[in-house]
Formats: sequence, C-alpha cells, structure tokens
Amino acid sequence: MKKIILPKGFKVAGISAGLKRSKRPDLALVFSKPACKAAAFFTTNRIKAAHIRVCLRHIKKSRTFHAVIINSGNANCFTGRKGRQTAEKITGLVARRLGLKKEKVLISSTGIIGKLLDFYKFKKAIPHLVRELKEQGLLRAAKAIMTTDTFAKIAVERLNIRGRSVTICGIAKGAGMISPNMATMLCFILTDASISVKALRSALKQAIENSFHCITVDGCMSTNDTILALANGEAANPLIKLDKPYFNSFSRSLNALCLKLAKMIVEDAEGATKFIQIRVKKAKTFKEAKGIALKIANSNLFKTAMYGQNPNLGRIVSAVGSYGIDIKEGDLKITLSSLRKRKINVVVVLNRGGSQALVYTSDLSPEYVKINARYN
Amino acid sequence: MKKIILPKGFKVAGISAGLKRSKRPDLALVFSKPACKAAAFFTTNRIKAAHIRVCLRHIKKSRTFHAVIINSGNANCFTGRKGRQTAEKITGLVARRLGLKKEKVLISSTGIIGKLLDFYKFKKAIPHLVRELKEQGLLRAAKAIMTTDTFAKIAVERLNIRGRSVTICGIAKGAGMISPNMATMLCFILTDASISVKALRSALKQAIENSFHCITVDGCMSTNDTILALANGEAANPLIKLDKPYFNSFSRSLNALCLKLAKMIVEDAEGATKFIQIRVKKAKTFKEAKGIALKIANSNLFKTAMYGQNPNLGRIVSAVGSYGIDIKEGDLKITLSSLRKRKINVVVVLNRGGSQALVYTSDLSPEYVKINARYN
Repeated sequence: MKKIILPKGFKVAGISAGLKRSKRPDLALVFSKPACKAAAFFTTNRIKAAHIRVCLRHIKKSRTFHAVIINSGNANCFTGRKGRQTAEKITGLVARRLGLKKEKVLISSTGIIGKLLDFYKFKKAIPHLVRELKEQGLLRAAKAIMTTDTFAKIAVERLNIRGRSVTICGIAKGAGMISPNMATMLCFILTDASISVKALRSALKQAIENSFHCITVDGCMSTNDTILALANGEAANPLIKLDKPYFNSFSRSLNALCLKLAKMIVEDAEGATKFIQIRVKKAKTFKEAKGIALKIANSNLFKTAMYGQNPNLGRIVSAVGSYGIDIKEGDLKITLSSLRKRKINVVVVLNRGGSQALVYTSDLSPEYVKINARYN
Repeated sequence: MKKIILPKGFKVAGISAGLKRSKRPDLALVFSKPACKAAAFFTTNRIKAAHIRVCLRHIKKSRTFHAVIINSGNANCFTGRKGRQTAEKITGLVARRLGLKKEKVLISSTGIIGKLLDFYKFKKAIPHLVRELKEQGLLRAAKAIMTTDTFAKIAVERLNIRGRSVTICGIAKGAGMISPNMATMLCFILTDASISVKALRSALKQAIENSFHCITVDGCMSTNDTILALANGEAANPLIKLDKPYFNSFSRSLNALCLKLAKMIVEDAEGATKFIQIRVKKAKTFKEAKGIALKIANSNLFKTAMYGQNPNLGRIVSAVGSYGIDIKEGDLKITLSSLRKRKINVVVVLNRGGSQALVYTSDLSPEYVKINARYN
C-alpha cells in the first residue's frame, strides 16, 4: 500500500488495548488540533449502542470537535445506563489527556453486543494511545477498527479548489451485519477542507445514499452503525457552501470515496467468494429498482446459488416477484455474467419505466455460517 | 409408520415419471370418486407458477373437483404461455383417463423454476399413475411431492361429529424457499367431512394463519406455494356450516393437522440441526409480536448463532431493534433455553402490551448453503 498522507492537521493512532482476545489492534484515536466541523449519521435500529447516545449528546452541546476514540472487540450495546456511563468516562479520559473539554471528543464501538466495556483496559491504554498519535498512522487505525474484516479499508481522494489542494480520506469496517438503509458499519472520514456544516452534511448524506445504502451482505441491521465526517479547514480553500460551485466537486469526491469504501466492505464480506453487482433497469421509480435489487441481493437462495456457480434464474425471478409489484413474466429479462469469475454482474430489466438502481452484494458460503456460528 | 387410512372415498398414487434425475418418485395423484368441495390458497408472489393459473381457471369454471395431479422435480414457473398450456394438457390427460371433465382436475408443481415441463414424460406416466390409485397409497404420494425434503410429511386427525367419524389427512412438502405470509409450500388436505365451501375455506384460512404462516426457513417467498383442501362428504355427517357448533371442532382438528405439518416442514428444513420456537410476549398487538418473532427467525446472524450453539443475545436484540418500534433496552427481557439440545426455545418479553405470537424456524448451517449451492 502506498504511504497514506492524512489531510493536514490530523493525527491518528491504532494500538492493542486487549479488548480482543486475539490481542490484535482494537483501539484507534483520531485527533485534529484545529477544531473540526462534523456531520454524522447513525443506525436506524431502535436499539442503539451506547456510543451513539454519547455522540448525540456531545453533538448537541458542541459545534466543533477535536477527537474520536474508536474501539473494536465490544459494541457496548444493550449495556444500559452503565454502558453509557462508561462511554462518557472514556471520552473524559481522552479529553483530559488532550487538554480538551469532554464534549469535544466523540466515540464509536463495534464488536459483540450485550457485554460491558472494561473501563480499566481503556484507562490503561489511553495514555499510550495518545502518545502514538502520528500523521502516518492511518493503516494502524484502520486495522484497529476491524472485527471479522480480513483487510483494512482505506480510501483517499484529492481535489483542487481554487488552487488549494484538499484531501479527503476515509477508513471503514464492515464484514457482517451489513444491510442498507442505514449507515451500516463504522466509517470515519477526515478532510482538511474548509466547509460549512450544512454543506458537509448534505454532501455526506448524498454520498451515503449512493454507496453504503447500496450494499448488503446479510440483510441484518446493526445497532452500532456510524458514519462520521470531520473537516478541519486546514486546506485553507475558500469555504465550501451549498450554493457554491465547488460544492459539487467536493461532493463528487466524497461520493467516490464512499463508493470505494462501500465496495471494499462487500469485497471483504464474511465468507464471500463473489462480488456481485445487481443492476435493475427500466423500473417505474428508483425506489422500485433499488427495492427489487435488494430483494435479490438479500435472498439466501440467490446468494447460495452464486456461491455454487449455479445459474439458477428461478431464484432471481422468485425474488423479483416477492417485491409485490405487478410484473408480467414476458416483460422480465434477466442476464447473468459468467459465474466462474469472482465478479458477477446481474442485470434485470423490468420494462415498466425509465429508472434504474445498482446494488452490491456478496454470496452466501458455508464459511459465512462458520464465522458467525463461532463469533462471540 | 402406522398404516394410514385415507378418508373415505379417496384414492392416491405416487410413482416415478423420470422428472427427477434421481429417479425418485416425482408424480402423485389424488382422486375422489365422489365430488369434492375445495378451498385453496396460493402464493402471494407476483410471479406465479403455471399450475396456479390453471387451478384458478378451473376453480372459476367448476364448483366441485375429483382429482389433483402433483409433480415434483420441476416447478413449471416462469415458463410463459407454453408452461400454462402444458399444465392444461396434463389435466386434460388425467381427466380423460378418469372419465372426467378437464376442469374437475387440479394440478400442482414444485421443483426448479424456469424450465419447461416435459409433457411426454407425463403422457407416458399418467396411465400407470391412474392404475396405481389405492386407498393405502398416501406415503407413496407424500414421497412423490418431496424435493429436498428428507422425510415424507403426513398428518391425520379424526373427529366425531354427531356420531359420524370424520377423517382429515394432509401431506406437505417444504424444505427450502419457506417464508410466511403466504401458503409457503405444497400441502394437500383430504377429508371425508360433509362441509360447505364457505366453512371449509374459513377453517382452512384460520388454520394456515396459525401454522404455515408462523414458520420460516430462509425468508424466501416461493412462486409455487399451494394449499388445497378437498372435502367429499363421504363421512355423511350433518353438513358443517359456519354457524354450526361442529364447525369449531372441525376447525380445531384442521388447525392441529396444519400445525403438525408446518412443524414437520421446519423439522426438515434444509440443513437444519435445530428446531427453534420463538415466542414474543407482551407486545402491543399480535402483528407486532409476530413481526418481531419473524425478524429474529429470519436473521441469518441469529440462525448461524443457533447453529453454532452460541448464546449471542446481541443478535436477538439487534433483530428486535430492527423492527422499527420504540423499545427501551430496560424493558426487553430475553431468555434462551439450552443450545445443546435440538429443540430451542427463545422467549422475548417486550413489556409493551398484552399480545403474543409463536413462530417456528430452523438454524442456518453450512449444509443449507451446500444444498442450495448445488440444487438445480
């Protein structure tokens, strides 16, 4: 991997705090000395991890942020008031070490649900974590947020705004419990762009719609999904606002970045042997096209057929029919690329209108079952 | 298995017509010399198998029926006009052999989707099939409708109505593409009860609601699901009508029969190593209780945890939260019986109201993936 240069003003770190039994890296820190504007989207699952409540509280209290601490190995979800208090205390520890107010620190967790975080492991690890902050630490941080992921997910985009070079970089973790219509994983985006909160939020929302909301691994909605973008303005470009022409170029770059990360999540889906693109064409609406693409993408029978390199069109037909709109057999055209390759293209033409959608998914393999049978 | 006595007036047969490559039985016939009243429910998938269209046409034309021909090995679905014509021709052949009008014969198919039925195999097999009709042929018929099922599914209920003995028996096939909210498999119910069509339909609808609509294997909706009840009145009991007291005892027996068959389908789910009962209690409404139970039952992560005997409560929490109603962590109580046993009980208490629901499902094993990777 090429040396990754962080956007100006950011430092990151990734270490092992002993939260994972494997002793692999499990604690990451993102820090920006200059204050960051932020945009965040969280899971729509009604059971939300403790870190989401803490983030929402800090976002209410403060308009700018300086740090995010992220742990893997424990989701700190379904852990009640105690879990929330622990998350708060952790942000407090980080804040003290960095000379910040508590609400300037955000937090994210991923891993097993229903177990309390061991606060003392954090207490012990945080001084070391802060000392590890570096401008070249992104790969280590990306590794520290992994759960069943097999590779670190990093993407970088650069753009030029009125002669100023702007960098956007992102890290993500995925692997399982991936389903669209929410930010379905952890993703942290750092940029040195100078941008208004409104513009950042709008660009992020749009980028998610076209990337993370178009992927599915197992149709299971996570309790911890978090996408967070931080912008510290160090690129010193003219402020990007919704009505400015460079909003579009920033938005395009952010879109590209999110799509890269989303595809990496599907590439690295638990047990996956295939990367599948499903394009539904000539639907009445985008919603219909995407809904049908997701019906196919989430069908276990379709996914197992893809794993078996078994061109069973019937399972696609059946998934399309289960969406509930009136489709005539004769109007439905389905094409499948060669199943021998890792990358598979499915095209479904409905002949109902002019809209289309593109969704990414993986196959369902015995390995997915084995990974999830033993994960705890 | 005990000798199964068919309801009076019925004969059945099951033979191999060479539709399955394995040469196992794949063609069944049900015949009643006395005319039968009928009630039928079909899949709500918008892509419906040819046999469903043919049945609907015959049910429009005729009020009584004498025969049903059922094949496995080919679903005759997504086969267009040609598929429909073939299904019609097959009913015609059966009718001629039995001295009936074509519309007195119903038809069902199950198996792979998207391949044309080989009419000549039917033409060759039907004379033999008709000769094989017997009063003791139920096991053979039950075997002939199997696809990936590992055992024949037969249930019998007897009841007494004003001194007359009434028999209800049913055969079903399940195994994969099983999801509720439609009649999710093939099921044929034969009874010698004397009953009005309205009463038969109402009792069947209720029985399905409490049985076949409460099971799920993989959340995939079939294109061929068919439940058909035939009643020939040979028991000579006083006519069962909706407002008669013995409607309730008939309905109870039919409920018990359908629940037995539905549970057998879950027992025999593809690759299953567990039989799981999920009870959701103290929900606001029955719909909410059932919806949440199904969210859990259809979660791949829950199912793989059950396979792995891994008491991962987080996956249940996450499935409950994904249903979209507001639930407080503190109100949610989850209990899991020992995962070492084949039969597992999950109880989820919501503390939102007084309704409850019970849903049956299986685990997700590597074997399910393997079966469906190679099925064609």
